[in-house]
Amino acid sequence: MCRWLAYTGSPVLLTRVLYTPVHSLIDQSLHSRLGAEATNGDGFGVGWYDAAPAPGVFRSVEPAWNDQNLHELAGHVSSHLFFAHIRAAIGSAVQQSNCHPFRHDRWLFMHNGFIDGFAAVKRDLVLAVDESLFPQIQGTADTEVLFYLALTFGLEEDPPEAIARAIGLVEACGRARGVQYPFQGTIATTDGENLWAFRYSSQGKSRSLFFTRDVRMLREHHPDWEVLGEVSDDTRLVVSEPIGDLPAAWVEMPEASYGVVSKHGDELLPFTPKPPHKAM
Amino acid sequence: MCRWLAYTGSPVLLTRVLYTPVHSLIDQSLHSRLGAEATNGDGFGVGWYDAAPAPGVFRSVEPAWNDQNLHELAGHVSSHLFFAHIRAAIGSAVQQSNCHPFRHDRWLFMHNGFIDGFAAVKRDLVLAVDESLFPQIQGTADTEVLFYLALTFGLEEDPPEAIARAIGLVEACGRARGVQYPFQGTIATTDGENLWAFRYSSQGKSRSLFFTRDVRMLREHHPDWEVLGEVSDDTRLVVSEPIGDLPAAWVEMPEASYGVVSKHGDELLPFTPKPPHKAM
Amino acid sequence: MCRWLAYTGSPVLLTRVLYTPVHSLIDQSLHSRLGAEATNGDGFGVGWYDAAPAPGVFRSVEPAWNDQNLHELAGHVSSHLFFAHIRAAIGSAVQQSNCHPFRHDRWLFMHNGFIDGFAAVKRDLVLAVDESLFPQIQGTADTEVLFYLALTFGLEEDPPEAIARAIGLVEACGRARGVQYPFQGTIATTDGENLWAFRYSSQGKSRSLFFTRDVRMLREHHPDWEVLGEVSDDTRLVVSEPIGDLPAAWVEMPEASYGVVSKHGDELLPFTPKPPHKAM
Amino acid sequence: MCRWLAYTGSPVLLTRVLYTPVHSLIDQSLHSRLGAEATNGDGFGVGWYDAAPAPGVFRSVEPAWNDQNLHELAGHVSSHLFFAHIRAAIGSAVQQSNCHPFRHDRWLFMHNGFIDGFAAVKRDLVLAVDESLFPQIQGTADTEVLFYLALTFGLEEDPPEAIARAIGLVEACGRARGVQYPFQGTIATTDGENLWAFRYSSQGKSRSLFFTRDVRMLREHHPDWEVLGEVSDDTRLVVSEPIGDLPAAWVEMPEASYGVVSKHGDELLPFTPKPPHKAM
Repeated sequence: MCRWLAYTGSPVLLTRVLYTPVHSLIDQSLHSRLGAEATNGDGFGVGWYDAAPAPGVFRSVEPAWNDQNLHELAGHVSSHLFFAHIRAAIGSAVQQSNCHPFRHDRWLFMHNGFIDGFAAVKRDLVLAVDESLFPQIQGTADTEVLFYLALTFGLEEDPPEAIARAIGLVEACGRARGVQYPFQGTIATTDGENLWAFRYSSQGKSRSLFFTRDVRMLREHHPDWEVLGEVSDDTRLVVSEPIGDLPAAWVEMPEASYGVVSKHGDELLPFTPKPPHKAM
Repeated sequence: MCRWLAYTGSPVLLTRVLYTPVHSLIDQSLHSRLGAEATNGDGFGVGWYDAAPAPGVFRSVEPAWNDQNLHELAGHVSSHLFFAHIRAAIGSAVQQSNCHPFRHDRWLFMHNGFIDGFAAVKRDLVLAVDESLFPQIQGTADTEVLFYLALTFGLEEDPPEAIARAIGLVEACGRARGVQYPFQGTIATTDGENLWAFRYSSQGKSRSLFFTRDVRMLREHHPDWEVLGEVSDDTRLVVSEPIGDLPAAWVEMPEASYGVVSKHGDELLPFTPKPPHKAM
Repeated sequence: MCRWLAYTGSPVLLTRVLYTPVHSLIDQSLHSRLGAEATNGDGFGVGWYDAAPAPGVFRSVEPAWNDQNLHELAGHVSSHLFFAHIRAAIGSAVQQSNCHPFRHDRWLFMHNGFIDGFAAVKRDLVLAVDESLFPQIQGTADTEVLFYLALTFGLEEDPPEAIARAIGLVEACGRARGVQYPFQGTIATTDGENLWAFRYSSQGKSRSLFFTRDVRMLREHHPDWEVLGEVSDDTRLVVSEPIGDLPAAWVEMPEASYGVVSKHGDELLPFTPKPPHKAM
Repeated sequence: MCRWLAYTGSPVLLTRVLYTPVHSLIDQSLHSRLGAEATNGDGFGVGWYDAAPAPGVFRSVEPAWNDQNLHELAGHVSSHLFFAHIRAAIGSAVQQSNCHPFRHDRWLFMHNGFIDGFAAVKRDLVLAVDESLFPQIQGTADTEVLFYLALTFGLEEDPPEAIARAIGLVEACGRARGVQYPFQGTIATTDGENLWAFRYSSQGKSRSLFFTRDVRMLREHHPDWEVLGEVSDDTRLVVSEPIGDLPAAWVEMPEASYGVVSKHGDELLPFTPKPPHKAM
């Protein structure tokens, strides 16, 4: 099982969030508590927004806990919005081009979960990717194909709609190939200003997803966690697993739902995949 | 420009061929003389046959000259038939899954050259890969797609026919997308018993390919090259560039030709791609 | 905590021992049960003897479970005596030159444990290494220094004596610097014919070490483990943790002891470090 | 032969200097013109100063031209003072801990050249390193030992004096071991405010070193090099080889000299190593 974290709020050095807290993301990659797999040593990635026109992405196949360059980067890069992901590979190769987050122009995308029976449906799915986007697929991971499907279905205009259509197609193709539960997972995506997080699985038993409704509550539960004292009240964290020993400080995202964090406020809404119009 | 070498003959430690000769393949990867690109530091691979049911493949993205593990392997693995390839990436990512040789069951495949305009034609080409083979594509290199096209067209039954159809399709798809010279390169493939080597380019200006017609001639020119004294007379080497300072010891494969080395003797024949029956 | 395995007996493909058994060494690197650390993703190494004059060594900083090249090597290399080691780094850098086993001429050496306070005593220890051996130290790991101390003290003539003096020096130097328990661990070393395994810690609470007294007993307990049916009765395995779910099939090496496996039979003897003659 | 570059001046995105110019440092690593070795594919490093208390250091053993993470970092990190180094290993292992620049507190240090006969003198040299600094040596490169010698001799107080004593010791130890020309190379070091660059070799035939006396001259010669129009007039570049096709735009540092760039102005002075007081 992968782990991921999405941060949006006051600009902060990445290291304050990734390394400093007890049970930080890096720490979690060594000692999983809620996860299905025992370790997460199959690569990692960080994507962040700053003054540059596109987000930066740093990915590596080394275990995150060994990567000296990640440690350096995290100590020198500040960002108001960043993604971090630690991978437990399920099927596709351990290579940099399969590490999350994936990037397209201003967009980042990451996922904890999988497309079941991916080998059987991969061809159907890549055929559905827009021809102009197809050559930009760089790796072989199921998540990257899902991202390009979402882009094909208008991610840049309407993310919930695009994700619903992408997962709808995954489910239709998978079921046509005899896969019972084609999709599993939690997804985060962003354009650098707004953040969308999804929790859904075909089986209705989705991997966990937690968020901070109010950073002040997190501060109360974790007075020792210094970074919380430095960030603004509107800072939001979305995480695959609670950071710290106090899950109560976190709100669990319900099954089949998605959340939006934007300047216009936060929203939590139900999520339903949209099947393609015709039978596959 | 990549470099490659195919060896078939008496079983020999790989190191005797890869490291020992002056201007060995490893050495060539540092100092190219005939090549289009100055260095070949984008990964390497070795594939070899021994008593195991399938060939071994060792690939890495490190420059070959730095790889201590390759050095160890070459000093401990003996083989009667092996491929070695040093990569200069053109376009596709530097990752292990893009390193040559590629393997499918008993078959190995490697290439020096490229499919021009690959981004534009990749979708057309992967669509032509047999559905059952499609999920086995592991990387993103043009050569791997070419290999799976050849497998689709019957490589395991009739390699020259399959390669002719694969390159024919590449040319048809490329031209349909406005690419003037869609294919360039030299190819080697083997089933562990027979060896096929091809030299062809759409432009008629193919990358170089040399072979030993008779290892005795090579011995005469290179009395200092000890391994030549140890191998049987029927040993054959096919190389992208002559090894050693005496090109005269080598025979250049003509433009648009292919060679076969087998128990039934060697053959050198003309090569012509076979275009697909219908217009693309 | 590291894991290691030493095999001596009938020549066998490495894969049969490293990958095939349930709770194999590779598997153990993901799911530690007895170990102090949860994961062992900080590199690995394999050293093996075959017809070549010196043992081969294959080491990498990737997690062993991801390394495709290790998988290939293990499927093609047979050996009658090999070491395998999976590293959980404690202090020194995760780099290939710090991976076990270490090699010097015909000798291999590996260790699960550590020199406590190594930073404080490293200078004292490397000064004690023979001047002619000093330049051959390639990495920065405590174990490599221990190996070179043992070589300095005559490992090639009398391994138990040399190891006793090396650990004796480590303890003397450590205590002189205020380290309470300077040495911890289990060690294996071999010249390609005989195998020595040591279990010792300054505290008297050494990391575990197990061996097969008789491969027939292991066969009885693990009828499903095919490789056991293929190897000769005099095959011996020494392991940091029992392989398989039946610890009863293994004999635990006592505290402060060492074992020898040789043509002249096996021996199990007490081990006591030898302090240096003069005060440090 | 390594390549290096030191930049001090207006804050600038690293990519503008490392990637954008024709014959940039990255480009030079593929096509050496003045260097002794043909390629520089044995790792690289970047060290930069920003608001953080210590400089960031990003190092990798991949060839610089392949490293996607370096590309990302360079596009997102701005600095007013940074070092970049591309390595051609001479002797010591290709591993991250041997990549330049080396860091100690606020200091960075890099080198193009070598200590001749390093294996023979390494023990003498590391013995001369201050005991408190000794455990901080992380790799096995000659340059790192030189750096720790300079730190031992007061680099942080008086860099020219410390470097003179460090090289003086290298020469004395080397000659005592029969090495004719013990030191070769160019060195750059900085505390984040001032920059020192040295050119010296025992033989009097030092590797090249160039600097910009006046960025306005560089602008005139390279009107196409956009970054020059963006940086302040007091920007300085020191490079192992001229960037761009117009060597005339650069000033060559004389043999046996060193330069200082500081707030108090630039200086160019003669450099003479200081031998240790007693015979070795």
